[in-house]
Amino acid sequence: MTGGSTRRSAIATDTAGTSLTADLLDGLRELLGDRLSLNETERANYGMDESSFSAPAPQAVAFLESTEEASELVRLCAQHRTPVIPFGAGTSLEGHVLATHGGVAVVMTGMNQVLEVNVDDLDATVQAGVTRKQLNDSLRDHGLFFPIDPGADASLGGMAATRASGTTAVRYGTMRDNILAMTVVLADGRVIRTGSRARKSSAGYDLTRLFIGSEGTLGIITEVTVRLQGVPPAISSAICRFPTVDDAVSAVISTIQFGIPVARVELLDELGLQAVNDFSGLDCVLEPTLFLEFHGSEKGVVEQAKEVQEIAGECGGADFEWATRTEDRNRLWQARHDAYWAALAMRPGCRGITTDVCVPISRLGECISETKRDFAETSLLAPLVGHVGDGNFHLVILIDTDDEEEVREARELNRRLVRRALAMGGTCTGEHGVGFGKMDYLVEEHGDAVDTMRAIKACLDPQDIMNPGKVVHVGA
Amino acid sequence: MTGGSTRRSAIATDTAGTSLTADLLDGLRELLGDRLSLNETERANYGMDESSFSAPAPQAVAFLESTEEASELVRLCAQHRTPVIPFGAGTSLEGHVLATHGGVAVVMTGMNQVLEVNVDDLDATVQAGVTRKQLNDSLRDHGLFFPIDPGADASLGGMAATRASGTTAVRYGTMRDNILAMTVVLADGRVIRTGSRARKSSAGYDLTRLFIGSEGTLGIITEVTVRLQGVPPAISSAICRFPTVDDAVSAVISTIQFGIPVARVELLDELGLQAVNDFSGLDCVLEPTLFLEFHGSEKGVVEQAKEVQEIAGECGGADFEWATRTEDRNRLWQARHDAYWAALAMRPGCRGITTDVCVPISRLGECISETKRDFAETSLLAPLVGHVGDGNFHLVILIDTDDEEEVREARELNRRLVRRALAMGGTCTGEHGVGFGKMDYLVEEHGDAVDTMRAIKACLDPQDIMNPGKVVHVGA
Repeated sequence: MTGGSTRRSAIATDTAGTSLTADLLDGLRELLGDRLSLNETERANYGMDESSFSAPAPQAVAFLESTEEASELVRLCAQHRTPVIPFGAGTSLEGHVLATHGGVAVVMTGMNQVLEVNVDDLDATVQAGVTRKQLNDSLRDHGLFFPIDPGADASLGGMAATRASGTTAVRYGTMRDNILAMTVVLADGRVIRTGSRARKSSAGYDLTRLFIGSEGTLGIITEVTVRLQGVPPAISSAICRFPTVDDAVSAVISTIQFGIPVARVELLDELGLQAVNDFSGLDCVLEPTLFLEFHGSEKGVVEQAKEVQEIAGECGGADFEWATRTEDRNRLWQARHDAYWAALAMRPGCRGITTDVCVPISRLGECISETKRDFAETSLLAPLVGHVGDGNFHLVILIDTDDEEEVREARELNRRLVRRALAMGGTCTGEHGVGFGKMDYLVEEHGDAVDTMRAIKACLDPQDIMNPGKVVHVGA
Repeated sequence: MTGGSTRRSAIATDTAGTSLTADLLDGLRELLGDRLSLNETERANYGMDESSFSAPAPQAVAFLESTEEASELVRLCAQHRTPVIPFGAGTSLEGHVLATHGGVAVVMTGMNQVLEVNVDDLDATVQAGVTRKQLNDSLRDHGLFFPIDPGADASLGGMAATRASGTTAVRYGTMRDNILAMTVVLADGRVIRTGSRARKSSAGYDLTRLFIGSEGTLGIITEVTVRLQGVPPAISSAICRFPTVDDAVSAVISTIQFGIPVARVELLDELGLQAVNDFSGLDCVLEPTLFLEFHGSEKGVVEQAKEVQEIAGECGGADFEWATRTEDRNRLWQARHDAYWAALAMRPGCRGITTDVCVPISRLGECISETKRDFAETSLLAPLVGHVGDGNFHLVILIDTDDEEEVREARELNRRLVRRALAMGGTCTGEHGVGFGKMDYLVEEHGDAVDTMRAIKACLDPQDIMNPGKVVHVGA
């Protein structure tokens, strides 16, 4: 997954004078033994994500196994004013985990224990490095699942830190809605628990939600208590193609407005579909297409699918095809999940700049149409996939990062897209987060409210050691 | 609703030296004209809520009409370090709106405009003083509704400020889940918008959730953008009685675990049912009883009800009765909503201390049983009603506030209940909030995390003028 890692856009960094002191290294070695690495390859590996950005590697990599170690590590780093960059599965898309200010990459994937599954309460507590697939594997025998599905097999801590969502948010919400409580190591090493296992609470400020989406800039999330769902008695999938993207979006809007509880509704445009056909061996007709999934009782999924089929028909949809067999469903959704890799495969050696706006659904058709017109005037390939039930869609802009003009053009198109979305009452990032890449857009989107974010950052991390250079500009 | 207002427990206050300066009064008069009141009756009215607590009245009452006025008022009060206490419908239950530190009660009910309804996007933006019934009246012609239902006709701003929920949270979530964005006046008068109309966003710290549940202690919420739901094609209700509370709770747990999307599932114990029978003229058999509501398609609600009936039967449920006619349903739910008044009516002249714990649902039966045993050993009447699908239940402890021994005993029973819930992994308040009454329990529940809350309070309200003396102890 990091094969194209050399071809990235170097970003401005502030790592002057950030080499670790001998004192700190001694402390970290004492704490972690050979789980502290200064190896060049490891430093490089844990200094990049799936974005097109690059920065110098962190000075050291720490492989953690417990909350206590995280606490002690932060305490040591705080004493030396050294940046701490939590690192999960490394699948972020905006440079979230790059060591732009130097420091220690803190690898959480060794904290991979499912600590507790409460079947009766439909909740589980896991260490932050547990991935969503690992969690779901451990739940299968209980007839339960964790619904949030960003595609990548991300870690639960990373998903919490970026407020991730994905294909199932239309039905089950985002990480925001599916976390009951977390254990967090603060910027001075203190450890707090942000909530209880109660389904709801009005007990004080919502620290859980404050740390969800904080991208490691306020503390390290070390444990996560999540809500689970019962595996529905019946699951079925469908695909349906439409003459235009607008028609497909109209069908989605009606589906949402009628309150049909679709579990997934994903749009691929012609180019996205071509990528998926080629990469995953599907033979879909190259028209804008919805991939749908229904969860419910046997009767319920039939009813839902019929209703959606009827709506689709009224919007010009054709060839509404059902898939109730598990292997057919899995093949379809595996293809959808591989869409990012399928897109990259369209242009060997390229990297992707992935856009991520989310708009009120009534503006979605307009937003996509204008954006596609924008791209039609360029030579850049940019297949579209979208979580359209949420108003969220992605273009994977395929670029050669050695070609500065292409990079500039791609970033300009993204800028125009973000401004279009903001003008429509939307957001610059529906699910990928701010990281390094969207700090300026955060200001465009939130205006003066960013001062409040900055005040919170300064209050909880006064030395600016927690993943510095991400989310908010400090001292600006 | 404030008829019993003289019979309350006076609480410790810190209003020394808090009389308003002539300078501040001049400024407020210039800003508000005759919408600034020093009238004794009005000060008394806007210095109490539905709790059993009392405190000296605020020095002045300000009736606001706009965000700009709120901003200017806070700016003036900040200059004079004078407390600002936002006041909605006054239906809070823990002394949230009492002027424990003196200051100005800021009445939001004049800000009662529904500003925007976006039918296609299923959202609406309202001024904070709009009540939930008013909002729902304005939505009816659009075929939409706002689902959160705390019983009282509270203001949307107040509901946001307390992270309210109620009978429908089991299906639709709480205020936390149903607000997209808010306009907030900060403690220095600056105005921010906390989010956009996008369904989801990963753009920065979740300020929306930070202010939801902040109870006026971090700023004044002046506008709220909420998610709406389409009115379901079919709604039906049911009641079912059980031999024991445990049996009823077992039926609820199974219903939740099977993923049946009940819209409401409320438990009344024998005493709660007696209160409701007497007050609302129902003739229910005096056994623990579930009130249920189903939302969905015509077929869907039939299917849901059948499944629940089957589960109920297995748990000893009897006389499962359906109500599909609107008038029957309304009568049932009006009776449920009046349960608080019905409880108070059991003991004329009394006031209620309303408990509010929420526990993981697997512990709910045990928590209720132990609590009922506790109460059985006293002479206090305490009918039980519960949002059992969430693990949340209330006892309305009927007390004579002139009888210090009764008050002491009631508070001790509540203390034991809170500690029982915390030991079970629950929370001291599922939906009523901390206010004045649960500040110490907040510390018991959250431990060191309260320091983080306190740091945020100090950062966003350094002069401690926003509803001081609530939620967190400042300077402790």
